[in-house]
Amino acid sequence: MEKRNLYLNNTPAEEAVKIYRKALEECVGVSYETIPVTEALNRVTKSAVYAKYCSPLYNSAAMDGVAVKAEITNLASEREPVELVIGENCQLIDTGDPIRPPCNAVIMAEDLVETPDPSRFRILASASPWQHVRPIGEDIVAGEMILPGGHRIRPVDIGVLIAGGVQKVEVVRRPLVAVIPTGSEIIEPGREPREGEIIESNSRMFENMVTEQEGLPFRLPPVPDDYGLLRQAILTAVREHDMVLVNAGSSAGMEDYTVHVLRELGQVIIHGVAIKPGKPVILAVVDGKPVIGLPGYPVSAFIGFQNFVIPVLDLYLGSNRQPAGRTEAVLSRRLISSLKYKEYVRVKIGKVDGKLIAAPLARGAGAAMSLVRADGFCVIDQNREGMEAGETVQVELFRSLSEIEHTVMVIGSHDLLLDVLSDLMPNLHPHMFLSSTHVGSMGGLMALRRGETHVAPIHLLDQKTGIYNRSYLEELFHEPVLLIKGVKRIQGLIVKKGNPLNIRGISDLPGRRYVNRQRGAGTRILFDYLLGENGLTPAQIDGYTHEASTHMAVAALVGSDGADAGMGIQSAAKAMDLDFLPIGAEEYDFALYPKALELPHIQAFLDVLKSQAFRMKLKEMGGYDTTGTGEQILIHGL
Amino acid sequence: MEKRNLYLNNTPAEEAVKIYRKALEECVGVSYETIPVTEALNRVTKSAVYAKYCSPLYNSAAMDGVAVKAEITNLASEREPVELVIGENCQLIDTGDPIRPPCNAVIMAEDLVETPDPSRFRILASASPWQHVRPIGEDIVAGEMILPGGHRIRPVDIGVLIAGGVQKVEVVRRPLVAVIPTGSEIIEPGREPREGEIIESNSRMFENMVTEQEGLPFRLPPVPDDYGLLRQAILTAVREHDMVLVNAGSSAGMEDYTVHVLRELGQVIIHGVAIKPGKPVILAVVDGKPVIGLPGYPVSAFIGFQNFVIPVLDLYLGSNRQPAGRTEAVLSRRLISSLKYKEYVRVKIGKVDGKLIAAPLARGAGAAMSLVRADGFCVIDQNREGMEAGETVQVELFRSLSEIEHTVMVIGSHDLLLDVLSDLMPNLHPHMFLSSTHVGSMGGLMALRRGETHVAPIHLLDQKTGIYNRSYLEELFHEPVLLIKGVKRIQGLIVKKGNPLNIRGISDLPGRRYVNRQRGAGTRILFDYLLGENGLTPAQIDGYTHEASTHMAVAALVGSDGADAGMGIQSAAKAMDLDFLPIGAEEYDFALYPKALELPHIQAFLDVLKSQAFRMKLKEMGGYDTTGTGEQILIHGL
Repeated sequence: MEKRNLYLNNTPAEEAVKIYRKALEECVGVSYETIPVTEALNRVTKSAVYAKYCSPLYNSAAMDGVAVKAEITNLASEREPVELVIGENCQLIDTGDPIRPPCNAVIMAEDLVETPDPSRFRILASASPWQHVRPIGEDIVAGEMILPGGHRIRPVDIGVLIAGGVQKVEVVRRPLVAVIPTGSEIIEPGREPREGEIIESNSRMFENMVTEQEGLPFRLPPVPDDYGLLRQAILTAVREHDMVLVNAGSSAGMEDYTVHVLRELGQVIIHGVAIKPGKPVILAVVDGKPVIGLPGYPVSAFIGFQNFVIPVLDLYLGSNRQPAGRTEAVLSRRLISSLKYKEYVRVKIGKVDGKLIAAPLARGAGAAMSLVRADGFCVIDQNREGMEAGETVQVELFRSLSEIEHTVMVIGSHDLLLDVLSDLMPNLHPHMFLSSTHVGSMGGLMALRRGETHVAPIHLLDQKTGIYNRSYLEELFHEPVLLIKGVKRIQGLIVKKGNPLNIRGISDLPGRRYVNRQRGAGTRILFDYLLGENGLTPAQIDGYTHEASTHMAVAALVGSDGADAGMGIQSAAKAMDLDFLPIGAEEYDFALYPKALELPHIQAFLDVLKSQAFRMKLKEMGGYDTTGTGEQILIHGL
Repeated sequence: MEKRNLYLNNTPAEEAVKIYRKALEECVGVSYETIPVTEALNRVTKSAVYAKYCSPLYNSAAMDGVAVKAEITNLASEREPVELVIGENCQLIDTGDPIRPPCNAVIMAEDLVETPDPSRFRILASASPWQHVRPIGEDIVAGEMILPGGHRIRPVDIGVLIAGGVQKVEVVRRPLVAVIPTGSEIIEPGREPREGEIIESNSRMFENMVTEQEGLPFRLPPVPDDYGLLRQAILTAVREHDMVLVNAGSSAGMEDYTVHVLRELGQVIIHGVAIKPGKPVILAVVDGKPVIGLPGYPVSAFIGFQNFVIPVLDLYLGSNRQPAGRTEAVLSRRLISSLKYKEYVRVKIGKVDGKLIAAPLARGAGAAMSLVRADGFCVIDQNREGMEAGETVQVELFRSLSEIEHTVMVIGSHDLLLDVLSDLMPNLHPHMFLSSTHVGSMGGLMALRRGETHVAPIHLLDQKTGIYNRSYLEELFHEPVLLIKGVKRIQGLIVKKGNPLNIRGISDLPGRRYVNRQRGAGTRILFDYLLGENGLTPAQIDGYTHEASTHMAVAALVGSDGADAGMGIQSAAKAMDLDFLPIGAEEYDFALYPKALELPHIQAFLDVLKSQAFRMKLKEMGGYDTTGTGEQILIHGL
């Protein structure tokens, strides 16, 4: 009876996992490989993936109809229709066709009144500039982050990556898992077992469990109960795979050699765990690879796999493999919907103040990126006219709730550094995420006040004092609120490469085609301030009402000759290879409520903000000053 | 502008799906293919799969230790130990080794007192017959249903199928889905798009959505906007695939040829749906195959796929593709657990009276079938001594909640016809299931009273009147309860093929090895009644305390020479190729509360019970009389 190992340990399951993962710390980790995007379903990105091209790549028709120069329609009315002649003052276009200068607007087919001459139409109302035109980069802007690191790739992500010109992607490599069936009594399927024989079946279950967990299983030939053969099989398996499962022989019977072989070849960390069924589990390390011995009873084998193999696979995969599902959330703002349609509204979900908030995203059909950014769909039934803010809605989730609950919600002004933060978060703090929505500085502060966001990034200039951000918080909030210093960033005019129109500053803008930012954007407030300083009025600026909603969108429009100049940040100009005329430094900071500091993911956010990796990346992008980044100023404190 | 189709319909989404599925009714349906079990992960079974072999195939040791004939240990005590000598009166065995006559018990290694002679041990207590012995078929009985039809195959199912000797399985065939990208403006990935060009990306999203939905996608080469080329592409695609997706060109622009081509080639059922985004959808039929035109905007394309492609894939796949997850449920009975272990208890989940009930299953580690039958795990933490009946517990689900909520819970006496009902349910009533747990007739009535089951199958003989079932319901219940007549079935003695011991009836049993059913089983009550009628007592029956818990387990024991005779039903004897001596007909009926009739799945159950398919199958099995099956008798009615 010498070979019996009567005395198994009885280590609690969680503790056994902890000890084992600690022992594997040095030798096991996530590795990566580059694969075609088209084969990347369910794979997890290594790091942020950026768009190569804009989508659309040019200003394009958002409707079927005709393209016109809006100005020629200015006088159209029911009394005095304007006549359009195809090929003369308008062009027939379908959705998606390019809109080229001098055309800058689309009139829908439905609004064209036919005449006896098929090439002539009448219109009864004027068209406004840029109506029904999808501006270049509306969906995806070249250089924009499409996916953050640590992201599980879904069908919709594959579509957007391809549309953005990305063909290959670096993803987490799948671990190769050897499964070795052992035992002199086991036989392969195919013939009727005799007394004393068992058809080997656990390895078939393991293979498929490994597949479900996203490893690559390799079932090796069965090994009889023979010390030497088992030793050889384990040695070979360890050489060629990332991880080895041995089944069974993990207990303390006469012929349970596994533990002895593993003691000879490497180190047995745990033998026996306090779990039922499933006690006789061996957790070992051989040549820096995990080797796990699992018991032979099917239920014990299954439970052993769930408790001990999956946590080790996690070391290789580093991913959060939780399924999505459905959830209830509180609607952040009123949604109006037509009785004509069942409507799918993409929403961002965030947990703020302990409750799940669903914040509706852009509703356009073209915005593939809104699918990538969305956390789920909220469906408005056809027979409803809409839903009120505060109403509880059902959301079909695209991400797991656990991921959503560990996500810092950022709503406010846009800056490319938000992409950097979002990419760094899960790298520096596993299972912590950042998700940002761009609604301008004022929009961010409103969202913060309504409890819809953890953090509002802002750059709001007090036109009286010339000081950024503080006075806005003092005026808009009456309770304590924190201002976390972000960065000083250079704002300026983005102009074409080589500055062919020789624009020197704001005063050169009249007569040029400008692209503005949307109302409430800090950049627009700064532009208004600078207009005043230069003695100009909005009416003098051609394109003052032509709005783009991000710095990158402004840069993309200038780059595609949709405008001659726009205001924005240096990194956007640099990303689109355009020239940049610095006008001044502004302060881009973060507003949040003090109690948010209690959340671990907010702490992670502050940590990333102060990290070396973040500073390095901003330095590389250019146009930022990180002196004082992360400092906290309490407004309305006691 | 002749080619414009300005006027799309605005059919509500659900109605459009209904109309389209109706149009496809004749030509589209589920088909099947036979594949190796090892490749069957996530595939859905066509019909019930039955075990070919028992598991274990022989009586085997459940522990490491020695095998003995229990009788020789009868006098062992601390004062007068019995000496065991290996090779003489005991054999050294490991878990899983066969236990052959005359041995009929295992003594654990821990209970052996060593002596100076390594081949001799002392024991200080007697061993009872069959202790630590896993009887043949304890886990799987040959002929037993392993999986019902319509079941999604999981890793654990693959293990059990292989263990039960099944190597191939008939499963639902995956539909071949062609994806045709169209448009003169689209280009393939690989070069920078010029103005007016778009990198085609929707088809890459569709491919992967089809994969996620378990179809097999085939992306075909892009087709320019040309009527003839598009016509040819669709014709070819329809010939070689089960379903075709055309993207885009589904709207009403000048170059949106799809609807015209489809009108020529087949029938356009719907053009335009009341959904936003996603209105311009075409649902057509060409040569009996569904052809769906989806809009080009990515978000519309995505929503169109979700709303219209998935319901058509469902016609091919016929499956319920809901994910599992976690749920809370009320524990049906007290669970005692050791502080030494974290324990995983397999449970059945059922929705009875609007609340989810978790009923614990067998706790042995060897019972792989209990994993297959379980709906989930309930975990008892190591630091808890157990949980009380009525306590709310967390359950990790193996099946989707929606499936569980449409499942008829059947707890009570075992009969093979329950497997037949379980197999027929989802076939005759899609998405309705039946799940049965075998605890004997009295156990079933107790579960019914505790609200843990919808239906209790019983065959309880009133020994005074000779009438089945009625008097038990009258005595045990005080509120109205329904008795649904099931079948009359022949009970008898199961003996070896050819009846070598020439057993003629109950009176021949003394001196033979009998295998009994567990306490509370109707068959055991009948046996006790017959013993009395024959003037015999339990003490005269060798093996009266040797219990098996199903008819099939009794038959398996007789078949493997673990016993000479046992009482059971004819179909079990037939399934194991044994002889059967009829003793009498008994009534196997179903008890349930009247309010259960309100549930659609209970109605489905009654419908299946009365179906032609059910009668035919029982006739084929033999030993049943279905006169009056489905008749209802109300007990304690007003």
